[in-house]
Parts: sequence; C-alpha cells; structure tokens
Amino acid sequence: MPNQQIRLDVNLAITSDPEINHLMHVSLLDEYQKQISVYHSEIEAEKKARKIRFQELPLQDLSKLKAFKKEVEGKFDTLVVLGIGGSALGNIALASALLHSYQQIANKKGMRLFVTDNVDPDWFLDLFDVINPDKTLFNVISKSGGTAETMSQFLYVWELLVAKYGDKAKDHMVATTDEKSGYLLDIANELGLRKFVVPEGVGGRFSVLSDVGLLSSILIGIDVDELLAGAAAMEKRCQTDELLKNPAYLNALIHYFYDVQLGKSISVMMPYSSTLKYLADWYAQLWGESLGKRYDLKGREVFVGQTPVKAVGPTDQHSQVQLYCEGPNDKIFTLVEVEKNHRDISFKNPFKGNEGTDYLDKRSMNELIRAELKGTSIALADAERPVVNVIFPEVNAFTVGQFIMMYELQTAMAGKLYQINPYDQPGVEAGKKATFALMGRPGFEGEKKRIETSYTFDYRFII
Amino acid sequence: MPNQQIRLDVNLAITSDPEINHLMHVSLLDEYQKQISVYHSEIEAEKKARKIRFQELPLQDLSKLKAFKKEVEGKFDTLVVLGIGGSALGNIALASALLHSYQQIANKKGMRLFVTDNVDPDWFLDLFDVINPDKTLFNVISKSGGTAETMSQFLYVWELLVAKYGDKAKDHMVATTDEKSGYLLDIANELGLRKFVVPEGVGGRFSVLSDVGLLSSILIGIDVDELLAGAAAMEKRCQTDELLKNPAYLNALIHYFYDVQLGKSISVMMPYSSTLKYLADWYAQLWGESLGKRYDLKGREVFVGQTPVKAVGPTDQHSQVQLYCEGPNDKIFTLVEVEKNHRDISFKNPFKGNEGTDYLDKRSMNELIRAELKGTSIALADAERPVVNVIFPEVNAFTVGQFIMMYELQTAMAGKLYQINPYDQPGVEAGKKATFALMGRPGFEGEKKRIETSYTFDYRFII
Repeated sequence: MPNQQIRLDVNLAITSDPEINHLMHVSLLDEYQKQISVYHSEIEAEKKARKIRFQELPLQDLSKLKAFKKEVEGKFDTLVVLGIGGSALGNIALASALLHSYQQIANKKGMRLFVTDNVDPDWFLDLFDVINPDKTLFNVISKSGGTAETMSQFLYVWELLVAKYGDKAKDHMVATTDEKSGYLLDIANELGLRKFVVPEGVGGRFSVLSDVGLLSSILIGIDVDELLAGAAAMEKRCQTDELLKNPAYLNALIHYFYDVQLGKSISVMMPYSSTLKYLADWYAQLWGESLGKRYDLKGREVFVGQTPVKAVGPTDQHSQVQLYCEGPNDKIFTLVEVEKNHRDISFKNPFKGNEGTDYLDKRSMNELIRAELKGTSIALADAERPVVNVIFPEVNAFTVGQFIMMYELQTAMAGKLYQINPYDQPGVEAGKKATFALMGRPGFEGEKKRIETSYTFDYRFII
Repeated sequence: MPNQQIRLDVNLAITSDPEINHLMHVSLLDEYQKQISVYHSEIEAEKKARKIRFQELPLQDLSKLKAFKKEVEGKFDTLVVLGIGGSALGNIALASALLHSYQQIANKKGMRLFVTDNVDPDWFLDLFDVINPDKTLFNVISKSGGTAETMSQFLYVWELLVAKYGDKAKDHMVATTDEKSGYLLDIANELGLRKFVVPEGVGGRFSVLSDVGLLSSILIGIDVDELLAGAAAMEKRCQTDELLKNPAYLNALIHYFYDVQLGKSISVMMPYSSTLKYLADWYAQLWGESLGKRYDLKGREVFVGQTPVKAVGPTDQHSQVQLYCEGPNDKIFTLVEVEKNHRDISFKNPFKGNEGTDYLDKRSMNELIRAELKGTSIALADAERPVVNVIFPEVNAFTVGQFIMMYELQTAMAGKLYQINPYDQPGVEAGKKATFALMGRPGFEGEKKRIETSYTFDYRFII
C-alpha cells in the first residue's frame, strides 16, 4: 500500500516573496506560532477535561455495532435513516464517498441507504414506492427527540409499521438517541426499540464517528475499523502545535487570516471528485454552524463566520468559476484532489484531425480531472485568489477518516482564533420558536402574538 | 385548476416604515422606476433585434421532438446525457422537479435519466454497472465540441457502442450541437448521428428551454407543452416595465440594491422542497456566471457579482441557519414555498403526553414544512436580514416554466443594473488554457512554460 496520508498543499496560499501583497507571507507563520501554541494547550486541556470529546470517538469499542450487523445481516436489504443535519450529513457523505455511486440502485457491499433529511411530503412519500418495508430497517436519529422533522417522519413510519407488522413492528425500527433522557428515549423505552447512542459531549455536527454515522456505515458495508483508524492517525498527527506539521492548525490559521485580514469571507470547498461531493456538504455544516456566531467568548457582538460554499470540480468550472475568477475577490478556495482512482479510462480517439478530441488520445480520465484541478488552481492564482489543496492519495475509509478528524480539529482551532464557542448553535432557536408558534404548539402563544403584530403584510408587495 | 401563477412576496425585503434602515424603502421603487423603464426599453430592443433570443424559445415548434419521442418509445428505458454546465443543470433540475424523486430507480412516465456532468472516472464508470446499453440512448451535448469533459466521455461511450453494436452503434447515440460548425458537428456528420440543435444566440445557461433541455424532458415524460406555456406566460407578464407588476424586474432591483447599497454580496436560494433543490443549482449558474464580471460595459475594472449559495429548507436549518441568523449580515435570502403538495401526510400521535410529538397530532407534513419556512423567514427578519419569497401554488411543468423564464429575465435586467454583459463568460478561458497546457495539447506550449516558471513549489508547504 502506498502512503495513505492525506496532504495539505498551501503553496498557492502562502508566499515567501516580499513583493506579493495578496497572499499570506510565510513570516506570519512565525508570528502566529506563539498564539497557536497557547490555543493548542487550551485544546489539549479541554480534551483532557473531557470538555471536548469528538477526538475520543476513534478509540471506541465497536463490538456492539459488529454484533448488531451479524444479527440483522440477510434480514434487510435497505436501511432508512430518519434524521436531519448532523444526524444525516455524515451518513450521506460516507455512503457517497465509500460505496458504489449508485448504491441506492444496487449496493453489493451491504444494505442500500436512504437518508430522509427533509419533510417535503412528495419527496418523502416517493421513498415508499422504491423500498420494500418487509426488507427495510429504519433508524430514527435524534438526540432529544425534539427535532420536528425527524419525529414527524417517525410518526408516519411507526404507524405504517404497526399497521403492517403489529407487535413485530419494533423489529423494523431502531432508535439512536441520548442515553439518559429525552422524548425519543421515552418513546424507545415505551416501545422496546433497540437503542444506539448519540454520545454526550459530542455535538451533532461532530458526531459522524459515533453510532450516529457508524451504525449506517457498518450496515452498508463501510470498513469502520479503517475509518476510525484514519481518524485516530490524524488525531495523533495533530498533537503537535507546530504549524508546518499540523494540517488542521495550519489550515485553520490560513482560513482565519484570509477572512479577517484579507476579506475572504467565503470559503469554497470544491472536491474534484463526484464521490467526495457530499463531504463538502458535511464541511459546510461544520464550518458554518461552528463559526457563524453573533457573540464572542467575552459576550461582545461580533457577527463572525466564513460562509462555506460547496462546489464540485470540474463540474462547477462550467457554472461558478467565471464568478470565482472575475467576481469579487472575497473567497478562499479548497480544491480537493484524488491522486489515484479505483478505476480509470484510457481514451482512444478515432477522429483523427479533430481538435476537439485529438489531444485526449492515450490520456486517461484521471489525468484529465487532475489537469483541470491544476488548471483551475492556476487560473485562480493568476487572478490573485488564494487556493489550498487537500490531497487524497486514494479515496478509502482510512483517508476519509483522516479528512473528518482534520476538519473537526481545524474547527476547534478556528474557534480559538475567532474567540467564539464553536460547539453551540444559539442562532437556530429563534426559527424553531417561530415554527412552533405557527404550528400552534402549547407554550408558544406569546411568540405567535408577537409574530402577528410585528409582521403585517402589505398586499402591494405580493405580485 | 386553481390559479397557477407563481408569486413573488417581498414584504420582508421592502418597508414603508421610515424608521427602519436595514431594509429597502418603498420610496426607492419610485426613484428607480425611471431607470428600470429605460433598461426595459433596451431589453425590448435587444429582443427585437434578436441580440437576445432565450425569450423566443417558448414559441418554438416541438413537432421534431415529439416525432422523435414516438420513434424511440419502447426501444429504450434509459437516457444518458453526456453534458456539463448549461448542458446538464437544466436537465437535472427539470427531472428532479417534475419526475418521481427516485426516477433513476423507476420512472413510470418514461425513460430513466442520468446526466454525467463530471469526469470522475470512478463515478462515471459506476454508471455502466446500473444501465443496460441495449436499452440506453446517449445524448452528447456540446455546442462547439470543444468541451473536454463531454468529449472525453463521448470517446469512451462511442468505443463501447462500436464494440458492442458495430454499424448499429449510431442507433444508441444522438448529438445536440451547433447547427453550422464545430468539432462535435463534424463528428456527428462523419458518423451519421441523429442531430439536435444548440440554438444560436442562446448561451448555455439560458438554453434549458431549447433542445438542450427539451429532448431529455420529452423522453423522460415531462409535459413540455406546459413547460413552454409557463415560460411564455411569464414572458408575457414581464413585458411591462412597472416594477410592482413585473416580478423579474422587481427581484432584479431588490437583489442589485441589497448587494450594492447594503452589502449583501451573497444571494442564498433556499427552496423548501427537495424536488426543487436542483433548480437552485440551475439558478446558481445563471446568477453567478452571468453577473460575476471583472469589467463593466465601458471596460472599467469592477469585479462585481453576487455569490449564489444554494440551500434546501428545512434541511439546512440544521446546517446553515445558525450562520445565516448570527453570522455576518451579508446575505439576501430567497425562500421558495410550495403551497400545495401532490401528496401529503396527516400525523397521528399515539404517544400522548410526549411533548416531542404531541403538537404534531392531526397536523400535516405540508403544514409543517410551510410553518418552518415562515418561522425561518421571521427569524431572519428579526435578525435584520432581507428575505424574499417565491411561491409555487404547486410544482408542475407550468409553474417551473414560469420560474425559469422569470429568473432569465431577472438576470437580463440585473445585467443592465450592474452595467455588465450578462451573456458572456470570459473568465473561464484562463483555466481552460492552463488545463490544455497541462494536458499537452498542441498550441499551448507557451502557457505550459509560463506555468512552470511562474509557479515553483516549496516543499515545506506540502504537509
């Protein structure tokens, strides 16, 4: 096996040329090193005090999950995850990266996976046209059981299962929820559902390497040992505070610096790989929800946070790169390269003399996609826009595990740099409260009244 | 049939309260009206002079497409589009909006559709595990035939078809390309392929209502008459210059104003609908590539263009809304509502006394998703962020046709407001040139040399 370490290449984001003003100067690494070391000590202390725990997940015992896999193997051909946000994005990203691209049509490694992370009734009901409930296991995931989308789906599916299977309904449903309390835990206990755990001290967006992501992973055929081994290897690699040895910290600093000092308020994540597309979605939640904060740690109003934008290369060269190269210079780019594909194509051109195809003769598709990545990197660099490359030697459970842990640690360090709490999400409460009010939930009458009096509509403005 | 007109609600983006400074004042509509009228006359003149032609597409003759449908009906169960960017996004958006959500598993209305808009070899080759070439029709779409991604895929598929079917290979392939010249036209003529047309004077991102999008649509079972009727209805509706009667112009002005005057450099498109998710992708290309420009019409360097961000509601409430409500106030939001779903669920709660589910009892999923849209609108408005709502009475070909034409006309007007050319994309050439150089294409040796000398790598910066 070649070296399976993922790499961070920051050559197009850092310069040692004193005449270049649009890039971060290498001397700044020295200047920031001391501060990074202080923050590193703080993070290490928080790990020890178990104030942050996501880094412990790679060391967990998988025997319960493995036993469950054996127990249900052959009984089901399909797994449906009822979950949203942190309970969905990791599952989708792992399946997309590590299974057959059309695993919902045919997954040779294990169950097919569907994740119902929305409450669009047309879309949600369509699912039941393509699955056979007899052969389907449902996994409802919610830490509290207060998630309206997930619990509403659960009500529908539970009713359907009871109508079909009576007392045996519970053989088709497992619950992944808090160990100690919550609405979903109460229901799971009442019904006698098999339970898995949303661990304490690990927020939804950091939970992919817990049961939240691993139960799906093991059932659909992902090598979870390798996934955790990759994450553990990255965790170990990032135990140094030395910037040029710690990809998570270096990338955190670069993104922070470009945002705060050079106005790159948008962070574009653009994997040159269709299978890694949904890792960009997972990243968008992690980065956006962790760092997008109104108040800093001292309670001052700061309104910070880079806006993550997900793109796919080369696809979005034909959609977004015009803007990226010629629009406002307000973005930092992460282009993700896959060095070696599992399969490849060598082109043969039978249309001699046709300039549209001649140069492709004897070249491979892997060469093409990597040349496009490099071509776009250069075009962005020519236009004075900063680019970092994340390089996967290959896409497998071990490298994907590294990627996940790298970005989680990067987010922890970014939280320090911005001096905000990267683990909470107070800003989502307002919308939930308004929604509950509009749904007529008891206890929200005051909010309902406020909305009705604050927001009066002018019919001229509906056209 | 109820009123099937899509509506634009700008109550949370325009205010008549003189004390509110974070919203656009209604008086500004009067102030801008004169300028809008001038630009409207310019656009109408350009239509007449056929300098812009996308608005003509709703009136085209569909008989050739309909005859082709009859000819191939029953012969194929799958259509694969080899295309990227403007040749892909419209096809994906229409299939997602108007077919069964899992049409790739089972499409009851017509052929299954796959669009290969990337050159990831793993992902591209996986496709051939789930289609039967005997029953598959391929449609290669490229105006010039110079699109590396599409032509490379074509080489692979053509080789495969010739190996399998010899002289009959051409029965499995059609080409959609320029009528007069181009690398793909040459190949299509050489091979005797059936041809469809990428029309002159219509850029890729405005081409969804031409053969580029309609050939797929008709074969997969979309009512193309209704689609065009919707577009025609919107085109007619937007023949007035009166801002409060023309949703395209009003929305163009609002987005322009918030960008240029109030610093909303990001435009978030967030359909509360999984099926409309890919319309947001289509919008992202249209808005980003049309308006993201370095030079204005007078050749001055301006670096303008809002960055489009696609999101899905309520899903992204659990991912991006924290940032949207509490992060930098640099965004304008478009929340897309679907008033009536084709199917719906009425919840029954058997878990009496459980607060996680009690309030859902007897409510419907449609009520929930719409309450979430309104709840999020209010939370954003409370946080002083501007919101517009686009309302679909229902998702069908007629309303989707309206949406497409509305945004195309909106983009035309936005081009006037920014005083840039919304129909070109000069900024994508640099990346293509660098890619060709890196692929060793003849004629690009100079660029190759420039890249090698300009970009020297420092190995300290690859970790």
